[in-house]
Amino acid sequence: MTRKMNPLDASWLFVDSQRTPMHVGALAIFSLPDDVSPDFIKNLFLHLRSPAGFVPPFNLRLKQPRLKLISSRLMPSWEEDPNIDLDYHLRHSALPQPGGERELGVLVSRLHSHPLDFARPLWECHIIEGLANSRFALYMKMHHSLVDGVGGMRMLSRLLSPDDTAMNLPPPWAVGTGEKKRIARDAGPSWQQLADQAREQARHVPSIGRAIADSWKETLQNTHPELGVPFRAPRSILNRKVSAQRRFATQYYDLARMRTLAKRAKVTLNDVFLGLCAMALRRYLLELNALPSEPLTAGLPVSVRPAGDPGAGNAISFIIANLHTHIADPLERLALIRDSTQKAKARFQTLPKEAITAYTSLFMAPFMLQLMTGMGGLMRPMFNVTISNVPGPDQTLYFNGARMDQMYPVSLLSHGQAINITVVSYAGQFNVGYTGCRDTLPHMQRMAVYTGEALVELEALLGINAS
Amino acid sequence: MTRKMNPLDASWLFVDSQRTPMHVGALAIFSLPDDVSPDFIKNLFLHLRSPAGFVPPFNLRLKQPRLKLISSRLMPSWEEDPNIDLDYHLRHSALPQPGGERELGVLVSRLHSHPLDFARPLWECHIIEGLANSRFALYMKMHHSLVDGVGGMRMLSRLLSPDDTAMNLPPPWAVGTGEKKRIARDAGPSWQQLADQAREQARHVPSIGRAIADSWKETLQNTHPELGVPFRAPRSILNRKVSAQRRFATQYYDLARMRTLAKRAKVTLNDVFLGLCAMALRRYLLELNALPSEPLTAGLPVSVRPAGDPGAGNAISFIIANLHTHIADPLERLALIRDSTQKAKARFQTLPKEAITAYTSLFMAPFMLQLMTGMGGLMRPMFNVTISNVPGPDQTLYFNGARMDQMYPVSLLSHGQAINITVVSYAGQFNVGYTGCRDTLPHMQRMAVYTGEALVELEALLGINAS
Repeated sequence: MTRKMNPLDASWLFVDSQRTPMHVGALAIFSLPDDVSPDFIKNLFLHLRSPAGFVPPFNLRLKQPRLKLISSRLMPSWEEDPNIDLDYHLRHSALPQPGGERELGVLVSRLHSHPLDFARPLWECHIIEGLANSRFALYMKMHHSLVDGVGGMRMLSRLLSPDDTAMNLPPPWAVGTGEKKRIARDAGPSWQQLADQAREQARHVPSIGRAIADSWKETLQNTHPELGVPFRAPRSILNRKVSAQRRFATQYYDLARMRTLAKRAKVTLNDVFLGLCAMALRRYLLELNALPSEPLTAGLPVSVRPAGDPGAGNAISFIIANLHTHIADPLERLALIRDSTQKAKARFQTLPKEAITAYTSLFMAPFMLQLMTGMGGLMRPMFNVTISNVPGPDQTLYFNGARMDQMYPVSLLSHGQAINITVVSYAGQFNVGYTGCRDTLPHMQRMAVYTGEALVELEALLGINAS
Repeated sequence: MTRKMNPLDASWLFVDSQRTPMHVGALAIFSLPDDVSPDFIKNLFLHLRSPAGFVPPFNLRLKQPRLKLISSRLMPSWEEDPNIDLDYHLRHSALPQPGGERELGVLVSRLHSHPLDFARPLWECHIIEGLANSRFALYMKMHHSLVDGVGGMRMLSRLLSPDDTAMNLPPPWAVGTGEKKRIARDAGPSWQQLADQAREQARHVPSIGRAIADSWKETLQNTHPELGVPFRAPRSILNRKVSAQRRFATQYYDLARMRTLAKRAKVTLNDVFLGLCAMALRRYLLELNALPSEPLTAGLPVSVRPAGDPGAGNAISFIIANLHTHIADPLERLALIRDSTQKAKARFQTLPKEAITAYTSLFMAPFMLQLMTGMGGLMRPMFNVTISNVPGPDQTLYFNGARMDQMYPVSLLSHGQAINITVVSYAGQFNVGYTGCRDTLPHMQRMAVYTGEALVELEALLGINAS
C-alpha cells in the first residue's frame, strides 16, 4: 500500500540533513500518584509495549529511504511497514543522580540530536525514569514530514486524560495523532495529482512575488519601519549555520502572573512573552558581546482575519515583530513591541485571502527557502528568531493517574535559525521550550534562566508585588 | 596543523555509511569499592571532566568532514580541533531499574548504533550508573580510522591500574591510546608520500593475486576442502546486508574451565571457543530454520611464523576455519575444527613473508573489498562469521579503586557480515562480546546464551564434572 506525500510534507525530507534533522518533539513531566507501586513506571512501560497495532502515521516508512540523497526532483512516498520493531521505537531510559532538571535537559538534548532511522517509521517514544521528587518524563519525537510543528504536543495528549482514574489508554501509535488527515490513501502512483498540486502551487507564485516585492519596497523606502519586513533583520550569531547537536532548555511561568503583567502594561499576553524574550536575548547577546546595533526581529505565527473573508474562521499566518533589542529600557521596549505586532496584524487585515495564503506559504518555512537556495546562514536573515505561541490544554491531564506537571515543545532548527522558542499554555501555566544549536549558541540554556529572571524584573518595574 | 592519513585508515572513512558506521568500542564493568562514598561515580565523572588537555588521536577531527560523501579519490586528512567540547564527548548515563545485564545490553546497543559526529573528534566516553549489585560501567567508542579493532580495549586500559589504591589516573584523551604511532605529523600536503604509499601497496598486488588464485584453484579442484578457502562459504542469513541498528550481547567464562576442556579434548583453547561458537550458531540457525547444509566458516586472526622469517616475532594473519556446522555431534565437530585450524596454520608456514603480508591485507578488511565493489551481502561470502580472540591483561585491574569485573569488545559490522564475535582474555576470564545487526539477526542475544549453555554441554560430553 503506497501513500503519496504532499509536496509540503516532502519538502521536509528534502531539507533534512545531518546538520538539520527535521524532526519535532514533545517533553512531558509527570508526578507519580500518591501511594504508588514501586513498579508503576515498569508497568506503564509494559502496557505501552504490549501489542496494540499501529495506525498512520506511526506505521509508515519511506518507500525510498535513500531517495532524499539522490534527488529532490522526485516525489517520495510512504508505505506501511508490516514488521514494526516496537522495542526499537519505544525506549526506557533513566537519568543519572541527582535526576534534576539539568540531567533531564542533558538527556533530552542528546535524544533530540540523534537522527531518526530513515529505514523505519519516523518516530520514537522514550519513558525516562530517575527524575527527582517522585517524577518521571516522556519524550516523543517524529519527523516533520508526518506531523506539523505542534504535532508532537498532540501525539502526547492522546495518551492523557483529564480523569485521574483513567488507566491504560491505548498508546498514540494504536490510535493516531489526532492530526487532520494529511496522508491520502493511494492505490498507486498519481502523477496527475502531483502535477495538479504543482500547478496549484505555481498559481500562487505571482502573489508571493508581489508580497516579497511589497516587502522589499518597504524596506527600500523605509516607509513602515515598524512592520519588521522580511530580510531586514540584522546579522547576528542567532543566524549562523548550525551543527548537528542541539541543546534543550525549559522555563515555565504562572499564567496568572503573565496576565496581571499584560493588563498592567496594556499589552497582550503574547506581547509580554515577546518582551521577556527580548529582555533575555538582549542580556544573553550583550554578555557575549554580540548584540547587533539594529533591533532583532522575531517571526511569529498569528491568527488573522483576512479582508473580504466571509468565513467565521481565522487564518493562521506569520508576522514579523520588531523586538527593539537596541532599546535599554524594558518598558519602553515592551510598548514598542506592542506597536509592532499591532501594526503587523492590522496590515494583514487589509490583504486579500489569496495574498495571505501565498505570503504564509513563504513564511511557513523560511529555512526551506534559504536551504533550497543554499543561502541559510549566509544571507541577511528574514528574521532573527522564531517565537511560537501554541495554545495547549486548559485542564490538568493525567497519564495513568500520574499528573502532568508540564509539557514542552522541542523544535527543529535550520541554517540561519540557531534558536527556536516555543511556548505552550497548559492548565494555568506558560511552558517554554528553547531548542538551540549546541555550537552556534554557547550556554544556550542561559536564555531559559534569563527569561525567568526577566519576569521578576518586569513585575518590579511595573510595581507588581509578585507572590 | 594538518596530519595526513594513511590509505588504510582513510579506507575506514570511505566505507563508513549510515548502515555501516565504522567505529569500534569497549565495555568495562566495575564493582564499587567497599565502604564507598555515595558520590563515588559523580566524583569519578568530575575527575574525568576536569581539564587535562587532549593528545592525538583524541584531538583530531576530519579536515573535510563531508569529503567522504563527495569522493573516495581524494585522501582525507586530520587537523587538531582547538575547541574540543568535552561535555559532548564525555557522557554520564544511567540504567533504568532493575539495572541488570539486560538493561546494560540495551543501552550499549543504542549507544553503539548512534553514528559519531564527523564534525568533531571521532570518539565518545560514557560512564553508566545504575548497574545492579553495586557496579557501574564504562563504554568508549572511537572511529576505526583512528584505532584498530582492539584499540578500544587499549584506550580503556589506560584508565586502569593493577594497583587498587591508584587514584585519578589521567583520562586516555590526556595521555593517548597506547597505540603505535599511526598518525604522522605533516606540515602540509604530501602528495609525493601518498603516491609512494600507493606504489608500495601496488607492489603487493601480484602476491595478493596469487594468493587469491591459489585459493580459487583449490576451490575449483577441491583438493583441500579442510582449508576453508575464501569465497567458498555457503550463503546464510549471517551474510546479508545490514541495517543501521546493532544489538550487543555478552558472555563470560572461567578460563580454567576452558583450559580443562581443551586439555581433555586435545585441542587448543581457541579451538574450544570455535567449537562453542559452532554449537551456538548451529542451534541458533536451526531454530530459525536457516542452517545451511554446507558447513559455515569463520575468519579468524591468528599468529603465524612465516617460512624464511629469521625474526623471533610472529606475524598476525587471518585464517579461515571450517566450523563443520553440518555435523550434529559436538565432539566429532570439535575434532574436525581442530584439523581445519591446524592445516590452515600449517599452510601459512609454507608461505613467504611477503605473501602473508599481502594475503593478510586482503583479509584484514574483507568487508572493505566487498563494500568497495558494492557486492557485500550479495555475493558468496568470503567466510560466514568473524571470530577474533584478543589477548588481554592477565592481572586484575582497577579504576580509581573500583575492580574491573569484565571487559568486552564492541565491534563493527559490514554488509555481508552481520555478526562479529570477539573474545578478550582478562584475569582468568574469557570475555565474549557479540555485535550483531538488529534486523538481519533476530534475537541475536540468544547467541550469547547458547554459547554459555554450549560450555556445560561440552563438559558433560567429555565427562568433566563442572564446579
